Amino acid sequence: MNEPDRSAALAALRQTLPDRSLLTDPDLMESYRIDRAMFCESGMPLAVVRARETAEVSAAMKIAHEFRIPVVPQGVRSGLAGAANAIDGCIVITVEAMDEVLHIDEANRYVVTQPGVLNANLARTVAEHDLFYPPDPSSKEFCSIGGNLSTNSGGLCCVKYGVTTDYVLALEVVLADGQVLRTGRTTVKGVAGYDLARLFVGAEGTLGIITEATLRLRAAAEKPRTLAATFTDANQAASAVSTIVKSGVVPSLLEFMDRTSVKVVNDEFQLGFDETVDAVILAQSDSGGAPGDAEIEEIARILRDADATDVIIADSAQEADALLAARREVLTAFETLGTTMVDDVCVPRNRLADLIDGIAKIAVDKDLTIGVVGHAGDGNFHPTVVFDNSDDDESRRAHEAFDEVMMLGLQLGGTITGEHGVGLLKRGPLESEVGELSLSIQRAIKQAIDPDGILNPGKVFDR
Amino acid sequence: MNEPDRSAALAALRQTLPDRSLLTDPDLMESYRIDRAMFCESGMPLAVVRARETAEVSAAMKIAHEFRIPVVPQGVRSGLAGAANAIDGCIVITVEAMDEVLHIDEANRYVVTQPGVLNANLARTVAEHDLFYPPDPSSKEFCSIGGNLSTNSGGLCCVKYGVTTDYVLALEVVLADGQVLRTGRTTVKGVAGYDLARLFVGAEGTLGIITEATLRLRAAAEKPRTLAATFTDANQAASAVSTIVKSGVVPSLLEFMDRTSVKVVNDEFQLGFDETVDAVILAQSDSGGAPGDAEIEEIARILRDADATDVIIADSAQEADALLAARREVLTAFETLGTTMVDDVCVPRNRLADLIDGIAKIAVDKDLTIGVVGHAGDGNFHPTVVFDNSDDDESRRAHEAFDEVMMLGLQLGGTITGEHGVGLLKRGPLESEVGELSLSIQRAIKQAIDPDGILNPGKVFDR
Repeated sequence: MNEPDRSAALAALRQTLPDRSLLTDPDLMESYRIDRAMFCESGMPLAVVRARETAEVSAAMKIAHEFRIPVVPQGVRSGLAGAANAIDGCIVITVEAMDEVLHIDEANRYVVTQPGVLNANLARTVAEHDLFYPPDPSSKEFCSIGGNLSTNSGGLCCVKYGVTTDYVLALEVVLADGQVLRTGRTTVKGVAGYDLARLFVGAEGTLGIITEATLRLRAAAEKPRTLAATFTDANQAASAVSTIVKSGVVPSLLEFMDRTSVKVVNDEFQLGFDETVDAVILAQSDSGGAPGDAEIEEIARILRDADATDVIIADSAQEADALLAARREVLTAFETLGTTMVDDVCVPRNRLADLIDGIAKIAVDKDLTIGVVGHAGDGNFHPTVVFDNSDDDESRRAHEAFDEVMMLGLQLGGTITGEHGVGLLKRGPLESEVGELSLSIQRAIKQAIDPDGILNPGKVFDR
Repeated sequence: MNEPDRSAALAALRQTLPDRSLLTDPDLMESYRIDRAMFCESGMPLAVVRARETAEVSAAMKIAHEFRIPVVPQGVRSGLAGAANAIDGCIVITVEAMDEVLHIDEANRYVVTQPGVLNANLARTVAEHDLFYPPDPSSKEFCSIGGNLSTNSGGLCCVKYGVTTDYVLALEVVLADGQVLRTGRTTVKGVAGYDLARLFVGAEGTLGIITEATLRLRAAAEKPRTLAATFTDANQAASAVSTIVKSGVVPSLLEFMDRTSVKVVNDEFQLGFDETVDAVILAQSDSGGAPGDAEIEEIARILRDADATDVIIADSAQEADALLAARREVLTAFETLGTTMVDDVCVPRNRLADLIDGIAKIAVDKDLTIGVVGHAGDGNFHPTVVFDNSDDDESRRAHEAFDEVMMLGLQLGGTITGEHGVGLLKRGPLESEVGELSLSIQRAIKQAIDPDGILNPGKVFDR
């Protein structure tokens, strides 16, 4: 392929887009080069298009298509797999400025939103109408709906309410040639043609740029009751989670923090946990009233039977909020300990103890700290390798540990990524998980929808 | 394209498959020609492969691929859109004999099943383990899981629990060249690569043949409480449904039957409804205990406020079962009145009254009976045109009415098919709903996955 004519493309962008939507100054573009994944390559874009509306995304995409220039779609770059990282000479199209909630349909319980809206802002906006958008990544205050869609994000209340794709009714997507596709529907059922909307969800910007989403909402849940349980043995905590899952009680949140995680948030949030604590389980019920009480009591009973040292039901909303805030901040708090690599394995929910156990062995074997925190009720953990990046040997061991944790997840019947995506970080192991045939079908679909391969090339799949 | 060498293909099938898995006698093949949609064309197959295992599906598909012979995948032919209808000279591959539930994982709450298992059999099998497979089409006693997957079937409890695709974790699919793809996972979250599983769901056998499914299960629900309400004006009933949806109460079932439907089941099941009844609403709560009582009371209150003539909460399970059985049998009961064409529109849930009203106008305009029954809580209705097929003018008007009902659904912001699929019956209107661009993307995906176009050609899309 001939090298594209980048200066002509840039001239076309300048001619077509309003000045405020186009950044070409290298200093300004610097912050658009990477997401929050560490150790992933990133290049310098030719230009950054800060689109204000679908028409601008479409116009930029048409120019990229005409000049065969790679496009990297971006939300707000909170991703953890490098999917939003710029490629040298690419056009970054960010939807961060498309941040309006467009319409709330109370009668049919859905919301139409632009993709740059932050997850927590969307949730707060619909809550004003007594409606509930459940998916709530820990990063909810600084991750966008567009990014959530592109990685099929989960979060803390997925254990009861499912993940992003479960809330998608319809999408507007700018395709590789700049055409604007509307797909899906506003009705709760429908089987007219292929489920294209759910194909774009989790595709990490390799099939199109999501410019609008119609998302299902639920009626507001009841005020949650929160419980925390401490264990002197993380394996017992993991087993207790499996018992809760099997019991049939469905908490609205069921989270796990290991010794390292507890220590780091204990120091930061003064939670008063004892030194002997090896793991903490947090659980919520949002069923309300007597059923909510019954659920929390049943969970407490299971945890006590599993030899929890302490089971505390939060007395106040403040107390509960402090616990939850601590949980949400763990990944950020790890960064105070050193350089971090955040993994994202998800295993069958009866293999949690095996996962915890296996990770502990890897940590010992590699002589490293691996903090383990996760959405225990989903079997989705974020083992985080903490290391000194200035130490070459430690860095090497850290990368090995990261890969071994992924492989452990696969061995336990799980997946290499529950909710962060493949991006650049996990392209290698992807084939180990899905197999050569699945990968060839995925590539065939990619080729069919983006024949020139200009949409986020090198992400998810090797080029 | 040259005409395929059908006699060589037949010889290859005979050589490859066990005798018991291959039917070539025209008399025996006759019953494999059509599903339950009326007025759809069907041809005579070259052979019917009654596969007992995936390897047989794969072997037959490889032969079809080698000789470029169209394949029509079939479940148990209970479909209502002609998707399973044979094509002249095709190979029918039916999975009806692959009818084993393979594995129930209680700890992780999923079931692995062959596709020929009947929906109700699957539900009963998992219920023995206190587990619950919610999607429950009215045809549950005579429709297969494979067919449910291929049309993304809904049912009566979707209003609370969602549709088939919401329960799909992993699939095994035989592809157009006979290769066996396993896609998806057993974990509850995952975003490693594209969501292929959900692309095969609802594809009506045009992308592959589903030979095994891993389906999510829920803990058994509580014993439901059932309510029936009668109205002297169907529009009031429809409005009441919209009010219930908006109230935030989520019943586990919310069904609607109009005058024609009530009359036909009243006669058959001796339900004792009055002549003046213009519509009946059935509702259930399976929340159990006090919350279930509260939900039923709240629904009853809304229905009374909407001028229901009578609101009866069932005293016994028998009474409730009789009501539900009547509802499930409506479509079959309509067949006693004449020839039927069953529609499947789904509209936003605040447009129910407009839909009922519009259908009544079409019925008057065409001088026909159109019975209306449906999953009101989802906005998904099955308006059924009843007519005398021996009367040419009436037949013409019936077909016109059928199409007008679909178009009315679209005008109200809905879809031409909520859960029956496109098949042969709705290929024409599909583009009106999804648009030319979406259709071109769908065709590109079809072309990528089935380049020779041998999988169920002419279904969903025109050839």
